[in-house]
Order: sequence, then structure tokens, then C-alpha cells
Amino acid sequence: MAQALAEAEKAFAADEIPIGAVVVFENQIIGRGYNQTERLRDVTAHAEMLALTAAANYLGNKYLSDCTLYVTIEPCVMCAGASYWAQMKAVVFGAEEPKVGFRRHGALLHPRTKLRGGVRAEECAALMRKFFSLKRK
Amino acid sequence: MAQALAEAEKAFAADEIPIGAVVVFENQIIGRGYNQTERLRDVTAHAEMLALTAAANYLGNKYLSDCTLYVTIEPCVMCAGASYWAQMKAVVFGAEEPKVGFRRHGALLHPRTKLRGGVRAEECAALMRKFFSLKRK
Repeated sequence: MAQALAEAEKAFAADEIPIGAVVVFENQIIGRGYNQTERLRDVTAHAEMLALTAAANYLGNKYLSDCTLYVTIEPCVMCAGASYWAQMKAVVFGAEEPKVGFRRHGALLHPRTKLRGGVRAEECAALMRKFFSLKRK
Repeated sequence: MAQALAEAEKAFAADEIPIGAVVVFENQIIGRGYNQTERLRDVTAHAEMLALTAAANYLGNKYLSDCTLYVTIEPCVMCAGASYWAQMKAVVFGAEEPKVGFRRHGALLHPRTKLRGGVRAEECAALMRKFFSLKRK
């Protein structure tokens, strides 16, 4: 999650909503991403999507069934759906996202995917609060 | 939908699950896509995702709030989530997808997005049946 937070810091520095993600396979990071929806003007450019695509490129396999996705904020429906197709081994997130997080829509993850939340949640949430508080000024 | 079907035929010819999509703005197609998950080895390369990204690139705007997405098969959770973020004006699909279509998970579209299904459903479904029947041989 430290590395996902480092990605989120990159998003913050780029004036993007600060969410970061990494994909880990056999204790190694094989995909990274930070939110780039503004720069790329593309709603699909969420941190998780970029990290999943990078990891699949690295492995040469669209299935990431031995990989864990770490992301600083609870994924949205789109990203949960992507993790479903990738058949992720696990999804680990930092802070909850009650408004647009996927969990309010029920079981969207693949049945084989383990889910864990609340990992370094306070740091992950603090970066978001800092971003939006600066935006409001 | 004829143009979305033409995209699906491209997927079929490329030995990909034959699903196609177009995005229409002011009676003009501004984004096209066909499923390329095998070629790109990327679960995010669904027809809808590629068409949405292409349309946003064309408009220089990640919001497609005056655009309609036409897709031959009912979108999955990931693609419904992407259409949510893009705040699509409408989503029109051909054949239903009872197993992995988004509708079984409830209201995943943006509240402003109008939904219509069953447009040229039989042609859209027939192309899928043809593909999977060849695969089984």
C-alpha cells in the first residue's frame, strides 16, 4: 500500500484526484497506475485500470489470477468490473468510498477474489481530503 | 446499431468475441470499438471502453453527456461503470446478456442515462451464437 500511496502522490502532484494503485505478483510490483482522468480526458483512466492493463502487458496474460491489486481508495463499479474480468486473486484497498465505491452495489467482484479494506486508510483518505480542500480554496 | 454490428463483425473476423460499439454525437459517429481483449491481452479492451475513449478523445472532453452509446450486447458491470463516469445521455444495446450483463446488479448507470435494449437483438445475438458454435467445433 506504500507503493500505491506513492502513485497517489503522483496524481496529487499532477492535479488529479489522488488515487494510486499497484498490482503485485510473487512479491513484485508488475503494474502501477495513478488517476489520470483529467490529463487523458478519459473516464476510463482510473489508477486501477492503468495498473491492471500494465500488469497484463507485463505478464502477457489478461488473467491476473495470481495477482493482488492494491489501491488507496475503494474501487468504483468500473474498476471492480475490470478486476472481475481479470479474476484477481485479491483486492486490497485503503479508505472506503461510501458514495461511488463498488460495495454499495453488492457482490461485483469475482467469486475467487478476496477483498480487504482499511489498509492505511487514514493516510489514503488524508491525501484525498487535502486535494479537495485545496480545490475548494 | 448497424454500425455497432459492423464493429462486431470486425471482432468476429479477428477471432474475438463479436461485440461492437459506437458512440454517436449529433447524428455523427465519434467513437468506434470492437472487442479486442485477446489481441491486446487486456480485459479492459471491451468494445464499449474503446469507443468511449475514442469519443472522449474526439471531443476533448471526458464527459459524453450529449452522446449515445450503441453496443450490440448488454454491457457488463465495467462498461456500465465507465458509462456512469462519462454521464452518457443514453445507452442502447442489442441482445440481452443475462449472465454477465450489468442489469442483474441493479441501477449502475448514471441517473441521467436513458437505457434501451433489444435493438436488432436477434442479429446481435446470432453473431455471438455463430462465434461460440465455431469455437466449440
